[in-house]
Amino acid sequence: MLAPKRSNLGGNPSQLLPSELVDRCIGSRIWILLRGDKEIVGTLKGFDVYVNMVLEDVIEYEITPEGKQETRLSQILLNGNNIALLVPGGKPEGVV
Amino acid sequence: MLAPKRSNLGGNPSQLLPSELVDRCIGSRIWILLRGDKEIVGTLKGFDVYVNMVLEDVIEYEITPEGKQETRLSQILLNGNNIALLVPGGKPEGVV
Amino acid sequence: MLAPKRSNLGGNPSQLLPSELVDRCIGSRIWILLRGDKEIVGTLKGFDVYVNMVLEDVIEYEITPEGKQETRLSQILLNGNNIALLVPGGKPEGVV
Amino acid sequence: MLAPKRSNLGGNPSQLLPSELVDRCIGSRIWILLRGDKEIVGTLKGFDVYVNMVLEDVIEYEITPEGKQETRLSQILLNGNNIALLVPGGKPEGVV
Amino acid sequence: MLAPKRSNLGGNPSQLLPSELVDRCIGSRIWILLRGDKEIVGTLKGFDVYVNMVLEDVIEYEITPEGKQETRLSQILLNGNNIALLVPGGKPEGVV
Amino acid sequence: MLAPKRSNLGGNPSQLLPSELVDRCIGSRIWILLRGDKEIVGTLKGFDVYVNMVLEDVIEYEITPEGKQETRLSQILLNGNNIALLVPGGKPEGVV
Amino acid sequence: MLAPKRSNLGGNPSQLLPSELVDRCIGSRIWILLRGDKEIVGTLKGFDVYVNMVLEDVIEYEITPEGKQETRLSQILLNGNNIALLVPGGKPEGVV
Repeated sequence: MLAPKRSNLGGNPSQLLPSELVDRCIGSRIWILLRGDKEIVGTLKGFDVYVNMVLEDVIEYEITPEGKQETRLSQILLNGNNIALLVPGGKPEGVV
Repeated sequence: MLAPKRSNLGGNPSQLLPSELVDRCIGSRIWILLRGDKEIVGTLKGFDVYVNMVLEDVIEYEITPEGKQETRLSQILLNGNNIALLVPGGKPEGVV
Repeated sequence: MLAPKRSNLGGNPSQLLPSELVDRCIGSRIWILLRGDKEIVGTLKGFDVYVNMVLEDVIEYEITPEGKQETRLSQILLNGNNIALLVPGGKPEGVV
Repeated sequence: MLAPKRSNLGGNPSQLLPSELVDRCIGSRIWILLRGDKEIVGTLKGFDVYVNMVLEDVIEYEITPEGKQETRLSQILLNGNNIALLVPGGKPEGVV
Repeated sequence: MLAPKRSNLGGNPSQLLPSELVDRCIGSRIWILLRGDKEIVGTLKGFDVYVNMVLEDVIEYEITPEGKQETRLSQILLNGNNIALLVPGGKPEGVV
Repeated sequence: MLAPKRSNLGGNPSQLLPSELVDRCIGSRIWILLRGDKEIVGTLKGFDVYVNMVLEDVIEYEITPEGKQETRLSQILLNGNNIALLVPGGKPEGVV
Repeated sequence: MLAPKRSNLGGNPSQLLPSELVDRCIGSRIWILLRGDKEIVGTLKGFDVYVNMVLEDVIEYEITPEGKQETRLSQILLNGNNIALLVPGGKPEGVV
């Protein structure tokens, strides 16, 4: 889950809250590493407090015995439960 | 879970919220990838905040030692807990 | 869990809500696929919001090294947590 | 968990609610299949909303490399989380 | 978790509620089977609604490749999450 | 989680509540067994209701193919979810 | 989760609460051990009550068959669920 409001944990105004970071990603590319070996790159169109995400122009990467398989999908809804880590801006050049 | 209300996370009106996306799928075909190796294609008839789904004209795909097995079912209730990813419009042509 | 009330997610009156589907199954045969390899067919006598189910005239199918084993039980209480998928009307003819 | 009150899901008075079924089992033998390979037969003395159970005159069955092992215990408290399925009346004759 | 109050599930005054059973064990020996292969015997000094337990004069049994290993500890706090089953009075004679 | 208030379960004033035990450990050494094969010894500086813990002068023990590996850390925050068992006073002499 | 408020568990003013420790880490390097074999070092920019974290100048370490692989990322959002242990100040010299 994402805590929406100003986090009442830290009185630290200079914080960049997780929900603010995701909010800034609306409309731009993000790279998502899922639990297990799947990765997803797509344009973030919307999300909710459970970090469920609507993504468009999606590439799903999966490691299979035959190597890294790519599947292209125009629009998906991703269950937030499986997200391990998210990188704003999409997959950096040179990262395998 | 799906957060029903306007997400109080992002003040971003251009967002397409996950619950709105699913709502738009009512009556149309969707492709659901479950945790593990099962997939389901069906017509979405209804859903709730736990993303439990009523689907009709369903094809269940399962990877078995003998290859991909298809089971056709007229109507099912799917437990939302196992949904990893959902693709509006059903399974795209050419995607294995 | 099953969301009991009219889902405040979709403003779509034509929806068939999961809880309504299960409610309609009271008194009739249903086929339940559990997580793992177990299946259950039985007559639904009652359920609650956690999808715990009272079933009668039950056949439990389990895949064992010796093949598919059947156990007949007159009445059971099934923990809703393990339900992956439910098929109203029981197991269709010809489905293995 | 067990939903105690009259389930607000189904307006169906003929329902036998899970909590009512368990309540009727107080004082009688029940057979409990746990997640994994353990089974328990005992007399139900009490339970709570988390389906934790007080059982007496208990036989615990466990599948070990040396075959099915039986342990007899006079009184136990069973954590409800591990219960997959419960059969009122105890283990039927002839069921292995 | 343990439901503290008189269970609003069963109107059955003759019930022995799980929380009452544990409460009666304060000051006496109990045998606890944990998920996995660990067991603990100790004197119960206190517990909370999450079934976290303070135990004294503890023997922890663990099945290792070298056989059953015993560790003696004067006082421990046990996380209630891992408790599968609890036997008031400690480990019965003759039970391996 | 730790239930902070006087447990409304047991009316037993002689109880030593889990939260009271942990509270008494502030400033002293404790030995923590985590799920899996990791152990931690450290001085408890603080904790919260989720049993997240701030520890100082920490030794982390991990069983690796090369034997038991020790890592020394001056200060850590430990996620309470992984704690199986806690021993006030640190690791007893002679315990492997 | 992190309990934000003054922990109502311990009346011990000398406690260093988990949320206070994390708050102090804003703007400095931290070393995070995740469940499984992944580690992350980065500068903490923000966090919420679910311990989701915004980190910058990140190095992700992963143990692969070819040895420890490093991936450098400018900014990430880390799901708090996978955090096992956190070390303020980053990875100490000499720790493998």
